[in-house]
Formats: sequence, C-alpha cells, structure tokens
Amino acid sequence: EDKMYRKIENKDIQRLGDIVGKDFVLTDEVAKQTYSHDETPDLKAEPEVIVKPADSKQISEIMQLATAEKLPITPRGGGTGLSGGAVPVMGGIVLTTERMNKLLDLDKFNSMAVVEAGLINANLQTEAEKSGLFYPVNPASMDTCTLGGNVAEAAGGANAVRYGTTRNYVTGLEVVLPDGAETKAGGKILKNATDNDLVHLILGSEGTLAVITRIIMRLVPKPGHTVMLIIPFDEVEPISETVQAIFAKRITPTMVELMDRKTLKACEKFLGETIQYSDAGCQLIIRLDSDSADENTKLYEIIGEICLEHGAEDVLVAEDNTSLERIWKMRRSIHESLVKEAGLLADEDVVVPRSKITELLRGVENISQKLELPSCAFGHLGDGNIHVNFLKEDLEEQKARAALKPALEELFKLAASLGGKVSGEHGVGCFKKPYMHLTTDKRYLQLRQQIKNTFDPANILNPGKII
Amino acid sequence: EDKMYRKIENKDIQRLGDIVGKDFVLTDEVAKQTYSHDETPDLKAEPEVIVKPADSKQISEIMQLATAEKLPITPRGGGTGLSGGAVPVMGGIVLTTERMNKLLDLDKFNSMAVVEAGLINANLQTEAEKSGLFYPVNPASMDTCTLGGNVAEAAGGANAVRYGTTRNYVTGLEVVLPDGAETKAGGKILKNATDNDLVHLILGSEGTLAVITRIIMRLVPKPGHTVMLIIPFDEVEPISETVQAIFAKRITPTMVELMDRKTLKACEKFLGETIQYSDAGCQLIIRLDSDSADENTKLYEIIGEICLEHGAEDVLVAEDNTSLERIWKMRRSIHESLVKEAGLLADEDVVVPRSKITELLRGVENISQKLELPSCAFGHLGDGNIHVNFLKEDLEEQKARAALKPALEELFKLAASLGGKVSGEHGVGCFKKPYMHLTTDKRYLQLRQQIKNTFDPANILNPGKII
Repeated sequence: EDKMYRKIENKDIQRLGDIVGKDFVLTDEVAKQTYSHDETPDLKAEPEVIVKPADSKQISEIMQLATAEKLPITPRGGGTGLSGGAVPVMGGIVLTTERMNKLLDLDKFNSMAVVEAGLINANLQTEAEKSGLFYPVNPASMDTCTLGGNVAEAAGGANAVRYGTTRNYVTGLEVVLPDGAETKAGGKILKNATDNDLVHLILGSEGTLAVITRIIMRLVPKPGHTVMLIIPFDEVEPISETVQAIFAKRITPTMVELMDRKTLKACEKFLGETIQYSDAGCQLIIRLDSDSADENTKLYEIIGEICLEHGAEDVLVAEDNTSLERIWKMRRSIHESLVKEAGLLADEDVVVPRSKITELLRGVENISQKLELPSCAFGHLGDGNIHVNFLKEDLEEQKARAALKPALEELFKLAASLGGKVSGEHGVGCFKKPYMHLTTDKRYLQLRQQIKNTFDPANILNPGKII
Repeated sequence: EDKMYRKIENKDIQRLGDIVGKDFVLTDEVAKQTYSHDETPDLKAEPEVIVKPADSKQISEIMQLATAEKLPITPRGGGTGLSGGAVPVMGGIVLTTERMNKLLDLDKFNSMAVVEAGLINANLQTEAEKSGLFYPVNPASMDTCTLGGNVAEAAGGANAVRYGTTRNYVTGLEVVLPDGAETKAGGKILKNATDNDLVHLILGSEGTLAVITRIIMRLVPKPGHTVMLIIPFDEVEPISETVQAIFAKRITPTMVELMDRKTLKACEKFLGETIQYSDAGCQLIIRLDSDSADENTKLYEIIGEICLEHGAEDVLVAEDNTSLERIWKMRRSIHESLVKEAGLLADEDVVVPRSKITELLRGVENISQKLELPSCAFGHLGDGNIHVNFLKEDLEEQKARAALKPALEELFKLAASLGGKVSGEHGVGCFKKPYMHLTTDKRYLQLRQQIKNTFDPANILNPGKII
C-alpha cells in the first residue's frame, strides 16, 4: 500500500512553506521523532515533514496539494491516542492543529462553546467552569489532548457513565475535505433533523474522512457538589452485582472506575505515595455529582451500604478538593505508571455488556495464566469498557513479545464471545485493524471502505487506518 | 424521476405473496388510501401495493426483488411522520413493519432493550416502567409511532431538554440493505469505537439507506417523582430570559414547552374542556423529574419565583397522575386540534439557538401580518425547536393556499438568518427538500447524494426523499 505514494521532495517542502510560512514546516530529526508516535506502546513511524497550519484556509491548500500530488497526510491533535490514529504509517505529511487552539466563543446564554480543533480539552473545562458551566468529557489525557482529536476518536472518559462521550456534546462541525473543499454541518442548536448525519459520520472517523477545524459543543450546568468514594474489595467477583445494585436504586454515578491490585501497586510505586488498601483485590472509584453536599451524602450512604453488603472492606469518602484531585491524579497516572513500573506491552480497551464484566476479568486471568504473560485491568466499569493490559514485568523481552500476539487474539475473541467489541473508546487506528472482523460485520467493513472512497478517492487522508 | 420506475405488475404481486404470504399483500383501494399519507397536511401519494413482512429474511427477499426489478419501495412505521418520509411519492411498494412489533428482550441488569422495528414507542415505555426503567423519548405520537420510525427520523420529543433524542439511546441496529444483504452494527454496549458510525449514519436517514429491522436501546432509571408546572404569561417577550434564568440556576427540567394563545384556544375547543388561563399570551409547561417529591418541591419553588419575577401571571402545580395525564394529553392533542379547529395548513419545526426564540416568534408574527395568513406557535422552547403553524381559519381556501408558499419561504429564511435549520426533529422528507439549501451547505448535499448512491445504486429505497 505504501508503494502508492512517492517520497516528499524539496518542491513539496517549499510549497508547504509558501502556504503556512517557513517557520511552521519542520523536517529536522528531533521533530520527526516527536511526531512519529502517539501513546500506543511500540508503534512508531516517522513523517517526512510536519506542517502547522494557522487556519482552515491553509489546511484547504495543504489538502489540495496532497490530493494533486498524492502525498499521504496524517492529521494530529495532541498525539495522545492509544490506537495509532495520529501515527504516519505511510510517512508523508503530519498536519498538526496545535496552532489552532482558540476558544472562539463561550456562549453562556445557549450553554454552548465554539472552539478551534486544537484547543486542549482541559482548557475548555477550565473556562467553562468560570462561567458556571461544565464540559464533562474527561479522557485521562485531558491536559494535553485536543478537542479535535477527541471528536476524531469520539473520545470517552471516566465521566461517561452519567454524562456520555464526545458524541453527546457535538452539535456542529466545520471540516476540510481531502479535495480542499470546506464544508460544515449542524450549528449552535440542540436539535437538528437536516445535516446531523454528517456530524455523526465524521465523529469517530479517526481523521480518515476530513480534517476537523472547528467544533460547536453543548455544555451542561456545573455540578453543585462532588464527592468521590474509594471502595476496596477482596475479590473482583462481587463487583458486577454491586454496580448493578447501585443502578437499581436509581442512582447514576458520574464515574464507576475499577483498579485491580497490580494497577494499584504500579501507581503506588510510580507516584511514590502510599495508597490506602493497595493490597485489596481491587478498588472501585465512584464519583457522585449533585446539587448539594446533603444530596451527595444521602447518595453515598446508600452506595456505602450496598457495597458493604456485597463484601467491600471499607468505604472511604473524599470531599475536599485536595483529596478529589489526588484520587483523579492517581487514576490518570495509570497508563504512565504501567509503562514505567510494569513494562506495559499493550493497553486494550475492550467493551462488553455490563453484566459480563466478571466473566471478562476471569477470562483475562485465564489467558494470562495459560500464556504465562502478566496482565492487569482497570477502567470504566460503569459502562463495561475495561482496559486490559499485558505486562512484561520481569519476563525476558523475547518471551513476552512472543506471548503478546496470541494473548491479544484471545482477549479480542473473549470480548466477541461476550457480545462486546475490540474497542470501546480508543478507536481502531492501525493497531486494531487486524481484529475488527472478530466483532464487526463484514458488510460494515465494505460500506466503510465505500464511504472512505467517496470522501477521499485518492486515499491521501490518514491512509492505513481503520480498514 | 418517477419515469425511471415501471408499474407494479401481477407477477410482482404474486412474487410478494410468495415471500410474505398472500394475506399480507394488499392492493385494495381502502388499503391504498390508508397507506397514501402520513400526518403531513395535504400530502398524498398512493402505493401500488402494500406488503407486510414478518421478519428480516422476508424483507431481504423483498429488497432483492425491488432492486432486480427496479421497483420503488417506501418503508413505513406508524405513519405518523410530519415531512412525508413514509409517503410513496413514486408509487410502487409500501413496506410496513407493523407485524414486527415484538419486545424481544428487556434486560434489567444492563438497562437495555432489544426490540423489533415495528414496536410502538408507548409499549416500550410501559414495559420499561414495569421494571423500574424509563425510555424517555416521547414524540406526541407515542401511542402509534414505531421505534423503527423513531430511529429512521432520529425522533425528538418533549423530554429532549433533559434526556436528549432517539440518537442518545440507540446502541445497536440490524438493517437490511437495498441489495438484500443483512448487516448490523453496535450491540448491547454503552461505548463502541468500532462500528458506531454506521449506527449513527442510518439514524435519521429517513429510510433512504436501509430498512431497520431490530434496535438495541439504552434505558435509564425511572424517575422517582414527576411534577408539571403550567405558567401563563401575558406576552412572549420575557420567555427566553425566563428559561435562561432557570438553566442558570443549574436546573435542567425534563421539558420546557410553549403554547401560544391560538394553540390554547384550539385545544380548548377540540377537547371540549376549559383550560385555565387560556386567554394568556402564552403558557409554559415545565416538567421536572427528581428522586423525590421533596426535591421537586425545592426545584419548583425556585422556578416559580423566577417566573413570577419575569412577569408570569401565576404558577400552577400538578403532581397527581390525573392532572399530569390531562396536561400531557392536552399537549399531545395540539396537532389534531389545529387540524380540526383552525384549518392547519403547515406544521413546521424550525430550530434556532435558544437565545433567538423571541426573535423567531416576533418574526413569525410579522410574516403572518404581512401575508395576511394566520399562524400560531407551540413546541419545544427548551431546545429552541419551535413548531410554527400556518392556519386557514376563516380565510378563503384559494387565498390561504396562495399565501402559504411565500410564508414558508420567509419562515425558513428567518430560521436561517437566526443560525437555525429548517427542521429540528420532523426530518426533511419530500416536504422540506426545496428549502434544504437555505440552512445546509451545498457540499453536504453532494456528500449525502454520494453516500445514498453507495448504499442504493439502483435508487429503489424511499426515492424522492431528502435530496
């Protein structure tokens, strides 16, 4: 497939410089290294040139050049993806939106924001909260990931149990198509029965159909009071039933996260902090948002009772900002902790029906034992989206690598057998392409390819991804 | 365009009978009349044959026949649409899903339902509530509209302010493509980064891309307590600010509906009931759902105060089931009341940013005066989706008809000038096709056409709609 593209030549570099200004075209080795990877373990491919446009007009010109010259072009947000979406596997051009990082409009009356694609997720959150509003989609990478990247990947996050994912917040998009045409759909409106399908087709298309330049998003009222509970259990067995019992009481927590023992230990080591009950089989982290502290107290008393009835060792309550931030920081440090302290080989976000979580976790333990490859699990228990990790630990490099491929294959087959999918939120990228057929209908893959051809007949935009 | 299709012949009728059984193929005049229209005023086109398949296999065979013989085929749910989506404007076959009406699985543990496309919306609601669950999407036609139709139109409803529309609840679809292939995407899962784009592309495609056969949908906990407020105002001027003030207090009501004086009067006449404050300039209907009566009381006291400060004449509170049902019945009777009592000519569901509602309402009054064509407005104030109605009242038929076309044109231009769209929830169908260009980008229309060609190269599925 990569033979279809010619190498970038000096004339291309010059033309890109004419479009964006010389200072925003990089070809040095350090830059090529920096833009050769996202956060997917062991995945690297160097671009030939990096270009940093300032606006959609420049992107349009770059796309026209790429289509005319048949040069591969990989759009990039914060580069925090976990399935290789921003990795230029065919070389060519990386187009980063990092200069397009403005919050254009925070419309308090309509509870809406208009942003450039390169705005950092956390920056929108901070600005929204200053106006009593809330943008609830919080991937662990929120301090560095961009909203454009979030839209491209239809990003989730820990708050999805109550608040949903990026898809629930986007009401309008402006994009540049591979032929350079700018188009838009949706608007600053809460319902739309005219062109909403285009918004939702581009959402989650991982930069294969268009480059997102501008986003209109819905905000919600900032919660009045937040509390987090840490609940250690001896075993993972009762957690599915526990979570079900909480929902059955008509309580919808903002997040219901899981951390198993290995995950806890890795965080403890990486952060150099003692985590209470880090010897527990697993811990649940539950976040509640209510209008007042009183309402939250009422809720966490009910939840606490349910958890203790189901065998929890304790229920710790955090309400002050310092404690809340410490817990969230720990949760967000997991990926890095596993990389640094446990030799993370793969971080896979399979999703299954919520009722199948215990089966999934036990199945992963079996795979791990059979193949003698260590694993751990954490993630979004509340919506069945568990992050299963395979670890090198003290194994020989070669032995670990040899076991990884069959382990992944068995993991994805397990998810399929439980009615799940190979990815709940990380996307397909290049990493999960070979496994898509396990959980996705063949005809869907054909339709996806046909839609791709419609948008990008020259196949210049993020080639090598999804299909 | 209709010259492209040949007439249905006896051999086709016979073939359809072989597929579904003779009793489920109708060609009599009464049936042709029944299936010639939905609820769109003044829109009729008779099918040549009506076919009632029992399952997706039969639909697959019908589609294969239609594609091979190039026969137009119009899928139909409950026939309650308001943009002509189910009207067979090219004649041919109407395919109704009315026999495929089973609730296949109500999964309490996962809070999910699996349904056949022909299941009536209200039947899912009733069954869900028996299990302590809630399906919140409630179009006014909920007693007769089908969930398949709801998905095809991405239907909204009055509860969307808090709970969103159909799009927020569908996690999986099974469909039959025009060539007869069955495919599916999604599942009984709450997150999905693999094939969710197909789910969301078919959602709202108005039966032009595939026939929906089976739907997996998310349910939510049944609210503990419901209350409705009726709030009369002298004028429409303060309502935008009033609603904004409620949201600013971090309160998100389930519904915030508007009824203007003419709407109130028509309902009063049609229902033969006295409506309190029916002489008011308009009334707001606000529904609140909380865990308990106490919480609702706290909320409606805040709302009541805000409304009175903004000039409301009174705040009436309904809490008992009889009162709640009477109000909702009145709200749902509006369309029929306007048809029977005011000579409804057109019911248009434009959508604008919430901050522009007063401008929209004043603009409609101006159009009405200028063209001497009576109008009224009601609908989903909380999400800017107002139903603007033009009425014949005592006008001469010919004069009213002559004024209607320019009135619609001006209405849609007004919505466009306010940053809105020609439809918030009714869909485009055949009725709004000529106006799409006013609020939707030209390139979008091209892409939509290309996607349609990909799915349905013979153009047999619901031809004449959207584009």
